[in-house]
Amino acid sequence: MTPKQSLLKKISNNTEVIGIIGLGYVGLPLAVNFAEAGIQVIGFEKSKEKAELVNSGKNYIGDIRDAVLREVVVEKLKLEATTDFSRMKECDALIICVPTPLDKFRKPDMSYIESACIDIGCNMKTGTFISLESTTYPTTTENFMLPIIEKESGMKHGDDFWLAYSPERVDPGNKEFHTRNTPKVMGAMTEDGMEIGEAIYTKAIDSIYKVSSPRIAEMVKILENTYRLVNISLINELALLSGKMDINIWEVIDAAKTKPFGFQAFYPGPGIGGHCIPLDPFYLEHIAKQYDFDLSMIHSAGHINMRMPHYMYIKISTALNSQQKAVNGSNILFLGVAYKPNIDDARESPALEIMDITAHKGGLVSYHDPFIPNVKTNKGRTFNSLELSKETLQNADCVVLTTNHKDFDTEFIKEYASLIVDLRNMITDGNEQVVKL
Amino acid sequence: MTPKQSLLKKISNNTEVIGIIGLGYVGLPLAVNFAEAGIQVIGFEKSKEKAELVNSGKNYIGDIRDAVLREVVVEKLKLEATTDFSRMKECDALIICVPTPLDKFRKPDMSYIESACIDIGCNMKTGTFISLESTTYPTTTENFMLPIIEKESGMKHGDDFWLAYSPERVDPGNKEFHTRNTPKVMGAMTEDGMEIGEAIYTKAIDSIYKVSSPRIAEMVKILENTYRLVNISLINELALLSGKMDINIWEVIDAAKTKPFGFQAFYPGPGIGGHCIPLDPFYLEHIAKQYDFDLSMIHSAGHINMRMPHYMYIKISTALNSQQKAVNGSNILFLGVAYKPNIDDARESPALEIMDITAHKGGLVSYHDPFIPNVKTNKGRTFNSLELSKETLQNADCVVLTTNHKDFDTEFIKEYASLIVDLRNMITDGNEQVVKL
Repeated sequence: MTPKQSLLKKISNNTEVIGIIGLGYVGLPLAVNFAEAGIQVIGFEKSKEKAELVNSGKNYIGDIRDAVLREVVVEKLKLEATTDFSRMKECDALIICVPTPLDKFRKPDMSYIESACIDIGCNMKTGTFISLESTTYPTTTENFMLPIIEKESGMKHGDDFWLAYSPERVDPGNKEFHTRNTPKVMGAMTEDGMEIGEAIYTKAIDSIYKVSSPRIAEMVKILENTYRLVNISLINELALLSGKMDINIWEVIDAAKTKPFGFQAFYPGPGIGGHCIPLDPFYLEHIAKQYDFDLSMIHSAGHINMRMPHYMYIKISTALNSQQKAVNGSNILFLGVAYKPNIDDARESPALEIMDITAHKGGLVSYHDPFIPNVKTNKGRTFNSLELSKETLQNADCVVLTTNHKDFDTEFIKEYASLIVDLRNMITDGNEQVVKL
Repeated sequence: MTPKQSLLKKISNNTEVIGIIGLGYVGLPLAVNFAEAGIQVIGFEKSKEKAELVNSGKNYIGDIRDAVLREVVVEKLKLEATTDFSRMKECDALIICVPTPLDKFRKPDMSYIESACIDIGCNMKTGTFISLESTTYPTTTENFMLPIIEKESGMKHGDDFWLAYSPERVDPGNKEFHTRNTPKVMGAMTEDGMEIGEAIYTKAIDSIYKVSSPRIAEMVKILENTYRLVNISLINELALLSGKMDINIWEVIDAAKTKPFGFQAFYPGPGIGGHCIPLDPFYLEHIAKQYDFDLSMIHSAGHINMRMPHYMYIKISTALNSQQKAVNGSNILFLGVAYKPNIDDARESPALEIMDITAHKGGLVSYHDPFIPNVKTNKGRTFNSLELSKETLQNADCVVLTTNHKDFDTEFIKEYASLIVDLRNMITDGNEQVVKL
């Protein structure tokens, strides 16, 4: 039997072992989905703390139900986590779900992918299927990963292992679409790789959409998130102009939505947060330079997004000024630091940056977020969430609505806050004490 | 009875007379819709030729069925056209559907609206409802139209007449959504105006969506079309990069479309044409300057769009070069000059600009379009549509697919063309003789 036949046989017998590298908001739900389907899963995680949480059946990802994780780990023994990467040799498939952040100069930080590829090359057995799920620039799989894995392993792609790219599409907090029922795009380097990849993923994902190469799949993911960055930046820019023109942009968007074709609504806000939209397009901008190409739409969109927290600070300062107060020495309370509503994730959250700017200008900054008990800003400031009480609101010279958590009681906030800067259109009745984005 | 009560009574008795100013692709369908509803309509048109066509029941707008126009004009006598603008005094409502183009320096050309307002001011009777449908920058209705009408008429808004803005959303060639079943946004300057406007429009349009002011409605229309300009420009820019990276952008878009949330597909092409998308956003850019505001997203999008015909010329030149031919002296046949498929409209069509560039460089340019027998380019070159025969295709050194009319037989084209530049993804099987956008 060839390595391919041997692997396909294991898959058809449900005896394959899946390794998931990185147990974050992408890797852990995927691991759980495989385990739920009765497949043996090993999660590889550099953080000893996370690995121990998983192994004791304790969940730390909002989109996974605690009971489901406990069941697949503790009762069914289908999922275990390890920090021992040599155990990759037990796996028939290795799926990489590591972060691809930007560095301080907003350039792609490929170190997590590189590290995963070295671990794989040093440890995998012959006949392993490898898939990358992390967002990255087109050509990464073929031109960046493949040489590392071949060099470290001494194996040859197509004979000894198969490489594919299949981007995650996880939308944290989305109640309708989760890992299993979101169609998954996959591009493998060879037809064999595609056949194996489809057989593997089909157990955890309802629908696999095959494309002709990894670079097509890489571009798909970048297009999806660039579309969002560009449209959010566009509506943010129009919101800023609308503010100057005495036009309520929220009313404009609601009316535009009545167009039954050719329009999709995006909403303004204090900036773009999370782990995808503010980052992914810049992976493309980075590789484009290698092709002597300048991506002006992404560049403009990135510029607007980068400036949004500063503009929001100006909104706060202007609102206080109208009450003859300065930012310097005023109590400024931020409601919500999560980057989007009803989740506990503050990564890249614009709220943190506005808090940094405001504190830097002498504002006495505090915050409340029902999902996030404490935060550390980019500039290293740390804050603990205050209780959202009558006193907290009354003590604030300005209350800034930065995240539209559905738990926020706007009637209560309006009753006790003397000045509100509403960056999320949470307060829709006209009110003198409310300044809107 | 007040003028308002008197007008509302007429409307409830179906005895109001509606005047439509400008019988183009917006005005004539609207006029027909009112007439079909049994309302008396007078169409005001500067072109004697168009007025005579209408009055003899001859249709010249693709989205109107010839029989319907003939019926309302000839049989039911509900619609007549006139070049005599003094007859505005017979009307209870005047709806302005004139062009709002850009001038040679890409600045708003407000002369058609100004002219309509002067005609109205000079001729209307007391108690007239006035609505503008043409796309324009926010504040036009309140700050540009109102002073002209009040000055010319000597009447006072709110007492003697009512002014509103209600943007057209006509999508030529759309078989599903037409004038009547596309929800219509309307913003009037007063509550009385809104009440009257709704009573009038409801007879021709199924659903009226009311907003709080004309400037909101003005911004709605600009947002809708800016959204399209920005997204088409984005995908065009990504298409150009993809060409360099050996990535098939069409395959990328088809895969991205499988994302069941947060994505809307746009397709690349040789540039943006028609009467709305390439123009409307620059109306906003124009007024933004008055508020010391620079719209970088629109600026970038406009820049890409403006350069697309040039890039397409480079595609043609590169394709010919691969066969050791120069543009200068080669026969280059363009298939399709309409700005979008299956319509007969070449306004702002990028095909015409590519033809101009190609001819300027010495290319021997010809074209075929089943809907458009002859064209005049921006630079004043005139062409007659050739028959799409075996000989026409064989004589061409390069065939350029510029519009994806559904009548085009790609198998026939492939059989006889030696070189094809496909700017619309019409030929989807891989083929050496085909160069794709």
